[in-house]
Amino acid sequence: MAHKTDIEIAREATKRPIQEIGEGLGIPVEHLLPFGHDKAKVSAEFIKGLNGNENGKLILVTAINPTPAGEGKTTTTVGLGDGLNAIGKKTAICIREASLGPCFGMKGGAAGGGYAQVVPMEDMNLHFTGDFHAITSAHNLLAAMIDNHIYWGNALEIDERRVTWRRVMDMNDRALRDCVTSLGGVANGFPRQTGFDITVASEVMAILCLATDLDDLQKRLGDIIVAYRRDRSPIYARDIKADGAMTVLLQQAMQPNLVQTLENNPAFVHGGPFANIAHGCNSVIATTTALKLADYVVTEAGFGADLGAEKFMNIKCRKAGLAPDAVVLVATVRAMKMNGGVAKGDLGREDVEAVEAGCPNLGRHIENVKSFGVPVVVAINHFSGDTEAEIAAVKTYVESMGSEAILCKHWEKGSAGITDLAERVAEIAESGVSQFAPLYPDDMSLFDKIETIAKRIYRADEALADQKIRDQLRAWEADGYGDLPVCMAKTQYSFSTDPNLRGAPVGHGVPVREVRLSAGAGFVVAICGEIMTMPGLPRVPSAEQIGLNEAGQIEGLF
Amino acid sequence: MAHKTDIEIAREATKRPIQEIGEGLGIPVEHLLPFGHDKAKVSAEFIKGLNGNENGKLILVTAINPTPAGEGKTTTTVGLGDGLNAIGKKTAICIREASLGPCFGMKGGAAGGGYAQVVPMEDMNLHFTGDFHAITSAHNLLAAMIDNHIYWGNALEIDERRVTWRRVMDMNDRALRDCVTSLGGVANGFPRQTGFDITVASEVMAILCLATDLDDLQKRLGDIIVAYRRDRSPIYARDIKADGAMTVLLQQAMQPNLVQTLENNPAFVHGGPFANIAHGCNSVIATTTALKLADYVVTEAGFGADLGAEKFMNIKCRKAGLAPDAVVLVATVRAMKMNGGVAKGDLGREDVEAVEAGCPNLGRHIENVKSFGVPVVVAINHFSGDTEAEIAAVKTYVESMGSEAILCKHWEKGSAGITDLAERVAEIAESGVSQFAPLYPDDMSLFDKIETIAKRIYRADEALADQKIRDQLRAWEADGYGDLPVCMAKTQYSFSTDPNLRGAPVGHGVPVREVRLSAGAGFVVAICGEIMTMPGLPRVPSAEQIGLNEAGQIEGLF
Repeated sequence: MAHKTDIEIAREATKRPIQEIGEGLGIPVEHLLPFGHDKAKVSAEFIKGLNGNENGKLILVTAINPTPAGEGKTTTTVGLGDGLNAIGKKTAICIREASLGPCFGMKGGAAGGGYAQVVPMEDMNLHFTGDFHAITSAHNLLAAMIDNHIYWGNALEIDERRVTWRRVMDMNDRALRDCVTSLGGVANGFPRQTGFDITVASEVMAILCLATDLDDLQKRLGDIIVAYRRDRSPIYARDIKADGAMTVLLQQAMQPNLVQTLENNPAFVHGGPFANIAHGCNSVIATTTALKLADYVVTEAGFGADLGAEKFMNIKCRKAGLAPDAVVLVATVRAMKMNGGVAKGDLGREDVEAVEAGCPNLGRHIENVKSFGVPVVVAINHFSGDTEAEIAAVKTYVESMGSEAILCKHWEKGSAGITDLAERVAEIAESGVSQFAPLYPDDMSLFDKIETIAKRIYRADEALADQKIRDQLRAWEADGYGDLPVCMAKTQYSFSTDPNLRGAPVGHGVPVREVRLSAGAGFVVAICGEIMTMPGLPRVPSAEQIGLNEAGQIEGLF
Repeated sequence: MAHKTDIEIAREATKRPIQEIGEGLGIPVEHLLPFGHDKAKVSAEFIKGLNGNENGKLILVTAINPTPAGEGKTTTTVGLGDGLNAIGKKTAICIREASLGPCFGMKGGAAGGGYAQVVPMEDMNLHFTGDFHAITSAHNLLAAMIDNHIYWGNALEIDERRVTWRRVMDMNDRALRDCVTSLGGVANGFPRQTGFDITVASEVMAILCLATDLDDLQKRLGDIIVAYRRDRSPIYARDIKADGAMTVLLQQAMQPNLVQTLENNPAFVHGGPFANIAHGCNSVIATTTALKLADYVVTEAGFGADLGAEKFMNIKCRKAGLAPDAVVLVATVRAMKMNGGVAKGDLGREDVEAVEAGCPNLGRHIENVKSFGVPVVVAINHFSGDTEAEIAAVKTYVESMGSEAILCKHWEKGSAGITDLAERVAEIAESGVSQFAPLYPDDMSLFDKIETIAKRIYRADEALADQKIRDQLRAWEADGYGDLPVCMAKTQYSFSTDPNLRGAPVGHGVPVREVRLSAGAGFVVAICGEIMTMPGLPRVPSAEQIGLNEAGQIEGLF
C-alpha cells in the first residue's frame, strides 16, 4: 500500500473554523484574534482573566538522543493529544513554532507527521502569525539603538570592543556569521566586528518564551546585557532605552497562537527557542494558558531528554512553577538499532541483537527522568518495518528498567493508534504519583549546577573548566546572578560532548569552553563543544525545489 | 479649543468588523483572510474572478514639493475618499503601507490625520499584516542563496566583486550600510564588501507593487539581476533558482490588505516602495482590485508631483494599463509661504505677498499634470491659522493658471469638510474629459527618456551624464531593456537636484550620477544626487519614548 505524504494528508484534512476550536476551550470569539480562518491569537485580556481556574494535568513528551532514523517526538505529542481527546479527556497540545530559515535549507515540517499533524502546515513553516518576525525586529532595533548611541557620542561609555549584542535574521546565512559593520566613513559610525545569529538563537526569543506577561516581558528585555564598559561594568538594554519599544514590537507576539490537529483538537503553537544555547520549549504563557483551559496539556521539549527534558524541568518548570504529571519518552526500534551500531542503510533488516545493544541509551533516559520524581512511560513510535521480535526486545528491556513501553501507531492511524498510551498516561497522571522536583536548588553555586547536570544526567566523571571560566561564574554570583539555573549547550546526539558517541557512554568529561550570561532570559549558558548559532544552506538547498504549483499550492517545502 | 491628537481621535473611532467593510464591496467572508477583527487580505482567487467587472474612476492625489510645513497628502486622500462616499459615490481608497524602521526614528503615522484617518493606526505603523517582513525574507533568501552558491563552488562563475544584490532590513540602521561579510575562515565563505538597504528600497518591494498576479510576480523575481560574471554577463535570480521559493514567501503578501477609514469606508493599504529609487505607489493589484469593486478609487503617489505623479503616470499607469480620470493637487497656504521664503517659525503671521511669491511652485505642478492630458483640481488643505486673504490669493493664482482651487476642511470635519472637492472631482471624472497619455513612448532611447523628464517636468535646460553612463544605457538597450521606463531618483524638495532651491527654478541642469537596472521591477533608475537607501536613527530616536501604558495602549509611536 502506497502511503500518502504528510502534505497530502494535511491537505485532505477538514479544518474547523478556528473560532469553533476556541469555543471548545471556552474562548469567546472576541478574544480570539484571527489570522486567516485557521489560526488565531488568544487575547492578553482573556488570559489575565483565567488566573482563578484550576490547572489541568501536564504531560511532557521527550525522546532518546536523536538519530538519523527519526524518532517522531512532535508526531507523538500530537498523536497523544488526539488520543487523550479520543478517550474523553479535554486535551490541548503545546508545541514550538518552526523557524523559517531552515525550511529553505534541509527540511521543513515541525508539525508532526502522518495522521498526527497540526494544520495549517504550510503557514506554520513560513510566516505563521509573524511572531518570529516580531522577535527579529525587536532584537535588531536594540542593535541599531546601540550603534546609534555610540554614533551620537557614546554617553554610556560603551567599550566598542565589548558589544555582546549581535543582530539576527530568520535565515540560514553563513555569510552573516562574522562581519565588520559601520564601514564607509564618518556618516556610518565606528567600524567594529560583529555578526548575525538565526532568530531562534536570540535572547529575545528565550525571553518571550519565559515571560509570564507583558510587564515581565519588558522587565526581562530591560535586563538584557548588551555591552560592557572599559571597567567591565555591564550596560543593559534598559540603559539604551530600548525596552519599551521592544515590548511594543512584541505585544502581539506574546499572545499564544491557537491552531488544530487533523482531528480538530486544539493546539497551541508558540515560541521556539534554540535547544542548545536556550531552553528549547514552547512559551510559558502558552503552557500556562492551556493548563487553565484544558484538563490535559501535552507538550514537548527539544532534542533528547538529556537536553530538552532536563531544561524543561530545571529551567521552564522551575521558573514558571510548573510540575509535569507524567513523562512520555519516545523511542523507535530503528533508533535503538542505530544506537546498537547499525548503519542507516541497513535498518531494514531485522536485528534483535542490535536493538538490545542500543537499549541502554533509552534506559539511561528513563533513569534520568525518574530522578526528577516524575513517572515515565516509553512510547514505541511504530515504523512499518519493525518486527514483532524487535518490538518485544524493547518492551522487555524497558520492563527490566521498572518502566513500561507501549506500541503506538498514531502516524498510521491517528488517535485510534495511540489509545493504549493515552489510557495509561491518564491513569498515571490521575494517580498523583508524580513528585516533581528540580535536580538542583537555586542556591547551589553555578559551577556545581553545571557539574550536577554533567554527572547526574550525562553520567560524566567531571565537568572541566579553566580558571577564567570559574572566575567568570564567581563574578556573576557576586553580581547577584548566582541563583539562576544553567542552560547546557552541547551536542544533542550523545550524552557526552562527542556527537559520535552513541548508546550510554561513561567515563567521559564535560569540558565547558565558554559561559554566557542571558540576564534577561534568566539563565547562565554553559557551552560544551561547537555550537552553531547561524546555520548555513547545503550544497543544494531545498529552496531550489520550493515553488507554487498550478493550483497555487506550495511544493517542495516539506 | 484644544484639538485632540490623531491617536486620540483614532482610538475613539467605532470600527466595523472588517467582514462588513468587505461586504460593502461585495467580497464574501470566505474570501477575506482576517488579521484580527479590523484587517483582512482579499483572496487571490476572488481577485481572479473580477476580470469581467467594469473599472471605476481613478483619482490620483498628489502634491506640491514637500516642505517642513506639511501638506497632508494622505490626509486629503482619505478625506476625499470619505467625501465621495458621503455624496453617494461608492469609493475605496488605495494607499501605501508604512515602513516599520522610520517609526522608531523620527515619526510614525502614514495613516492620515485628524478626522481623515485610516485605522487601525497602531498596527499600520508596526507589523500590519506582515507584508514587509515577507519582502525582507524573500530578499534575504536570495542573498543567502547567492553567497551559498559561491561557497559551494560557484558553478555560475559569479564575479564576487560584482554581486549587486545586497541585503535588507526594515530598520533604520546606519551601521549596516556598508559592511564586510563572510569573515571568520573557510566555513563562512569568501569575504566581500556589501551592505544593507531598508526594506522599502528592495527591488522585491517594487516588483510586488507592479506585479499583476503570482505568475507575473515569479517571472519578475526571476528577472532580477543579482550579479555579473567577469565577462560582465548578468546572472539572474532565476539562475540561482530562488524565484520559486521567493514567490512562496510572498504568496500571502501579494494579497491586498483591506482596512477602513474613521468613517468606515474601505481602504486598501498595500505595498510601499521608495519614491526615489523606486516608483513610490501602492500595489497595482490593490488599485486594479479596488477599481473592479468600487465606482471611485482615490489613490496617492509619493513626494511631490514632479516625482510621485510623474512615476505614477509613466511607470505604474503605463505598465498596468491604468488611466487617471482626475488629479487632485494638494497645497497649503503655509507651504506656499515657505516656497515664498518664509521660515517655519514665522508661518503664524499673515503674509499674502509670500503666498503669492510661493505659488509658482504650485503652478508648475498644475502645468505638469495637465501635460499628461489629465484634468487637475487644487485642494487647499486648511490649517487653522490660514487667513481669508491668503486663501483668496491661492485661489486667484490657481484660476490664473486655468484651474481651480477648493478649500478643504477634512482634517477638522471629516467628509463634511470636503464635500465641495468631492462634488467637483466627481463632475470632472464623469465628464470623461481626461485624455491620459504617458509623457514619452516606450521606444524612445533611455537617455532621451531621462532628458524628457528633466526638461518637461523639472524644467531643466539639460540632463548631464558622462560617457560611461551613456554607454551603460546603450548597453542595456542592446540587451533588450530599451523599452523600459526610467525611474528618477532625486531630491523631493525641489524641481531641481538642489534641495534648497524652492519655488519654480529654471536654467538648471540635472546631473545623472549613476544608473541602475531594476530588471525585475522593469525600470531603469537614474540617480541624480545623494540618495540614502538605509536611513539612520536621530540623536534621540523616538524609540526611546515608545512603550505600553498601563492600559496596554501604545504610547509615543505617533
